[in-house]
Amino acid sequence: MVIILEKNASESQIENVIKHLEDYGFQVHKSTGVERTILGAIGVQPNFDTRKVSILDGVSEVYRITTPYKLAGRSFHEEDTIIKINDVEIGGNKVVLIAGPCSIESEEQIFRMAKVVSESGGKILRGGAFKPRTSPYSFQGLGEDGLKMIRAAADKYNLLVITEVMQIDHIELMDQYVDIFQVGARNMQNFSLIKELGKATKPVMLKRGIAATIEELLMSAEYILSSGNKNVFLCERGIRTFEQYTRNTFDLSAIPVVHKKSHLPIIGDPSHATGLRDQVPPMARAAVAAGADGLMIEIHDDPENALSDGPQALLPNTFIKLVEELRLIAHAIGRTL
Amino acid sequence: MVIILEKNASESQIENVIKHLEDYGFQVHKSTGVERTILGAIGVQPNFDTRKVSILDGVSEVYRITTPYKLAGRSFHEEDTIIKINDVEIGGNKVVLIAGPCSIESEEQIFRMAKVVSESGGKILRGGAFKPRTSPYSFQGLGEDGLKMIRAAADKYNLLVITEVMQIDHIELMDQYVDIFQVGARNMQNFSLIKELGKATKPVMLKRGIAATIEELLMSAEYILSSGNKNVFLCERGIRTFEQYTRNTFDLSAIPVVHKKSHLPIIGDPSHATGLRDQVPPMARAAVAAGADGLMIEIHDDPENALSDGPQALLPNTFIKLVEELRLIAHAIGRTL
Amino acid sequence: MVIILEKNASESQIENVIKHLEDYGFQVHKSTGVERTILGAIGVQPNFDTRKVSILDGVSEVYRITTPYKLAGRSFHEEDTIIKINDVEIGGNKVVLIAGPCSIESEEQIFRMAKVVSESGGKILRGGAFKPRTSPYSFQGLGEDGLKMIRAAADKYNLLVITEVMQIDHIELMDQYVDIFQVGARNMQNFSLIKELGKATKPVMLKRGIAATIEELLMSAEYILSSGNKNVFLCERGIRTFEQYTRNTFDLSAIPVVHKKSHLPIIGDPSHATGLRDQVPPMARAAVAAGADGLMIEIHDDPENALSDGPQALLPNTFIKLVEELRLIAHAIGRTL
Amino acid sequence: MVIILEKNASESQIENVIKHLEDYGFQVHKSTGVERTILGAIGVQPNFDTRKVSILDGVSEVYRITTPYKLAGRSFHEEDTIIKINDVEIGGNKVVLIAGPCSIESEEQIFRMAKVVSESGGKILRGGAFKPRTSPYSFQGLGEDGLKMIRAAADKYNLLVITEVMQIDHIELMDQYVDIFQVGARNMQNFSLIKELGKATKPVMLKRGIAATIEELLMSAEYILSSGNKNVFLCERGIRTFEQYTRNTFDLSAIPVVHKKSHLPIIGDPSHATGLRDQVPPMARAAVAAGADGLMIEIHDDPENALSDGPQALLPNTFIKLVEELRLIAHAIGRTL
Repeated sequence: MVIILEKNASESQIENVIKHLEDYGFQVHKSTGVERTILGAIGVQPNFDTRKVSILDGVSEVYRITTPYKLAGRSFHEEDTIIKINDVEIGGNKVVLIAGPCSIESEEQIFRMAKVVSESGGKILRGGAFKPRTSPYSFQGLGEDGLKMIRAAADKYNLLVITEVMQIDHIELMDQYVDIFQVGARNMQNFSLIKELGKATKPVMLKRGIAATIEELLMSAEYILSSGNKNVFLCERGIRTFEQYTRNTFDLSAIPVVHKKSHLPIIGDPSHATGLRDQVPPMARAAVAAGADGLMIEIHDDPENALSDGPQALLPNTFIKLVEELRLIAHAIGRTL
Repeated sequence: MVIILEKNASESQIENVIKHLEDYGFQVHKSTGVERTILGAIGVQPNFDTRKVSILDGVSEVYRITTPYKLAGRSFHEEDTIIKINDVEIGGNKVVLIAGPCSIESEEQIFRMAKVVSESGGKILRGGAFKPRTSPYSFQGLGEDGLKMIRAAADKYNLLVITEVMQIDHIELMDQYVDIFQVGARNMQNFSLIKELGKATKPVMLKRGIAATIEELLMSAEYILSSGNKNVFLCERGIRTFEQYTRNTFDLSAIPVVHKKSHLPIIGDPSHATGLRDQVPPMARAAVAAGADGLMIEIHDDPENALSDGPQALLPNTFIKLVEELRLIAHAIGRTL
Repeated sequence: MVIILEKNASESQIENVIKHLEDYGFQVHKSTGVERTILGAIGVQPNFDTRKVSILDGVSEVYRITTPYKLAGRSFHEEDTIIKINDVEIGGNKVVLIAGPCSIESEEQIFRMAKVVSESGGKILRGGAFKPRTSPYSFQGLGEDGLKMIRAAADKYNLLVITEVMQIDHIELMDQYVDIFQVGARNMQNFSLIKELGKATKPVMLKRGIAATIEELLMSAEYILSSGNKNVFLCERGIRTFEQYTRNTFDLSAIPVVHKKSHLPIIGDPSHATGLRDQVPPMARAAVAAGADGLMIEIHDDPENALSDGPQALLPNTFIKLVEELRLIAHAIGRTL
Repeated sequence: MVIILEKNASESQIENVIKHLEDYGFQVHKSTGVERTILGAIGVQPNFDTRKVSILDGVSEVYRITTPYKLAGRSFHEEDTIIKINDVEIGGNKVVLIAGPCSIESEEQIFRMAKVVSESGGKILRGGAFKPRTSPYSFQGLGEDGLKMIRAAADKYNLLVITEVMQIDHIELMDQYVDIFQVGARNMQNFSLIKELGKATKPVMLKRGIAATIEELLMSAEYILSSGNKNVFLCERGIRTFEQYTRNTFDLSAIPVVHKKSHLPIIGDPSHATGLRDQVPPMARAAVAAGADGLMIEIHDDPENALSDGPQALLPNTFIKLVEELRLIAHAIGRTL
């Protein structure tokens, strides 16, 4: 932590600040310049609220110099994390494809979709069984029946299953059916839930909240990592901005930034980021070009009658064609897909 | 719903759109203009995803014409909701004062703070027992012990208790100690949690999420109302914007907007909106001037040693002095405090 | 400037950074801690691009420790600036009222409006002669004819005139008619224009851009001050956020923040901030309660036929009634109006 | 325009609304449903302020149904605009490369950079002669001398010249030296300036303002087009959001959205969008993958000593290597570069 004192800070104010810092457990260095005195407070306290110092008399500005996360950061863990599930690797050179419908709607539907995913070269099948919906009047998912269907469909086509977990008392139930727990954007800071997932043995995909900074995303990952689960990967799915033409603004810069700051893999979800089918292919291509370790794409073969989010789902043919383009782009940057 | 067709939409495209609308249960009106054809789709379907129509061939734009909430809206409930708890009314002419520390830290502390609240004319004591913290390494609250302390302190000074509930399996426990359940900003769209609170018999204060629109806030209220609990009030506590000097941007316009759109009371929380002590008094005054039905303010008599959010807590004396100003402002606009 | 070095920065990297800093004209202090080395670079270079240092090898983080503005800041100018024009003071204890129509539409209109402003106790008449409109097809103002009309109307009712200047070659012309130059939000960073206004002898009101931080607002004020014009005051008029119910989000926190950081007066413009007539009175009250040194409010006696922004204009009666409330609120916080 | 009336709107209110619409020159269609009456107002008035109707008694909501721009929109101009300057085409199948230093610093520098651009296959040389800087204390550009240098450098390497024009009285001067006028993000809504550029004979590149919606970008293009200059292309360069790790958030979705709504070409500027050198290559790749018609990239061979924006400039070698990757990505989506 670096503390810049006011130009006219008195000696007694400076001493009082130093005393507080030492009481908080820091080792203090003092630099006296022509215009200002600067204090350096050394010590590892990732959870220290710097505002405690900024309100002391004589203090002008306070800067934290260590990132508030440790386990998620690259400083203490230089090599990329690669998550291995059966023969699938997330975070390696190969870009991973996750696809499927927004909601599991019926056995036939999820089997048809699993077939499409498999044919495209995708490795992981997505589909919601418990749906968090903005409106209490909307379709809320098939529940455990849905979980059984997606497991069966994935097994038939040799795919992994990812689905969203929304509450703590569903973890045990879902653990029987899924390979990866998805934490939705709205739950990124549901700390009760993510701490519990830190005790799970299966990997967790953590989606960025629509108003979450990249640092907050890494802090939430830290919750899971610090509870013991090291298999965490992240998902950029759009942030809320003033631009309303697209549902959200797909912040692709988050991909290289996360790769710089953290060893955790990060994928992109162009379907939720844009909310509109015709935006999905260009944004999927852009995500791979930006270095995403994977993509999550919603598909549906009858989007007009989809029970949720039909308008952002790709038709199977469009999806298959898109994957071909994605493969070429992956090659252009030295990866496979 | 109003559907604007493309300028060059063909007759068969138009018929296909009309057929879809009728299949979805709407009654359709067609207006043919010189340049465009417009369809009006009449029918109450608050959860209808308008994108289902916007992706049909020949459709240019689609507008929803009914608000997606019913129970929270003023159209079906013209008079203001007034929530009565013992002798306290929330949403009436009198502006309600909620104050207390961020976290319950000890029995002595919460009793001292309860005394301050009572002396200022405040009616409701706040204090967190289970703390949602961005960092897994920060103080997480005293739990049930804290609940016992705040209940005892409130009882001694004839105050009501409000505290935040973070997970479903805490509701039953907290119900024994609190008068009002607080839903934090991060949980505004934790639909599992708010649906359960819809079954509670005690009032719920729902805080606006930092990236939530006013409409989404009312939609979350709708979840609680539609589950049976009619005693809901809202709290504006700042939204996330590009401006970083203040922790959040206190969106005071939300107060008159909610009063226009909804019958539910809305209060302001200047402590969390600004995050800095010296911003709290001007913003508290502004909230009352803008028509807030109440205020929630954090106080602490030793903020330097507060276990959480000390830098935004007012000292008791500053708080007492502020309340005097607030009272004059309330009078200036024809209310009491 | 404070430079935090990488944990594993080598001695030669550290020396290279120090050499660069010294070449850039800074005096360097080095603090070596257990985990990290910190450099303090002392010297007044408000325009230094800190990224020049952040890209050097071995550098982890760089923080600027001086504000980039000098003349606009309070450090070098502790007392509040009070701008005096005839018998009007801006920035003193008395809250100043600026009102008038969006555009000057006719001689009769501007005289009627001047009368209303005068009767309410307002001191400054506003009205646009050259209108910056988003659409090239909208009314673009009466030009010099409009300036003559507003001058005559103001003179009759003993008011000052403020109007917006949009281009450099209008300054000389407008200087003959106006008392205060207004710089609109869209031109806050039109540096060519504001530098020229720095050479003017009349005061300048600088509106905050819809995407400008408070610091950038003060930097633009610095441009005017550093060109020689010391009579600058600021205007908060709403920033762009994700919330779309109101035209902009009125960032009232900017008022106490500017008062803390700068000696310049700041007023509020609730008409442009909200864009809707029924939002103007609560937000005008909130601005005064938050400590604004003045208000700018649009009025019109036939808003349905206004040539611009009719929907946000207050009717004269509503305006007169509002001013009475504002006066009571000003008194509540120890000011007059 | 579609007008939704209040549920309880009276017959006389409805008639009054219809009368107003007819007075404003619209042809009105009335649809009476079970719950609501809807009015369709037909007529082309792109500049109509819909709030004029929304404030009438009995009106609930008003939607504009025509885009406010005509000349920039695809409805009246289906084929893509391709701008031809000598042998360069902007908006065709070939992705155009614009590169060069932020500022023209010296004759040697701009010649060295022109050589790099030419060797990479770039066609257009950029470089600022008049610099708009946030701080009045920063380097403000070489002025006309700089223009002469960039013209000579471009001529030697058979490149076109683009540079930013900041004020009306520079247009004539710059017209002698440049091939394309650049309008910077801060001037996107400097309507005085862009109207004048509408009278120029050379093409204009219009950068999106950091707080401008895509619709506002197209409205500003409309200003230029409606003043007579048909050779306009757009540039996405990042918008301001709450995320502060990157200087701006590069809104790549704007590329497919503009391509859908408009016939004008759009390029991407990853240098200004991210502000950091190591973010430029991934975001440049993403822009091409998203369908950008070109890229503008800042390069410098001595970024540590650059007079402006050195930290975001690519070194020549990195740039050359990046262009190779971009070429492969362009091929992957069926284009050339």
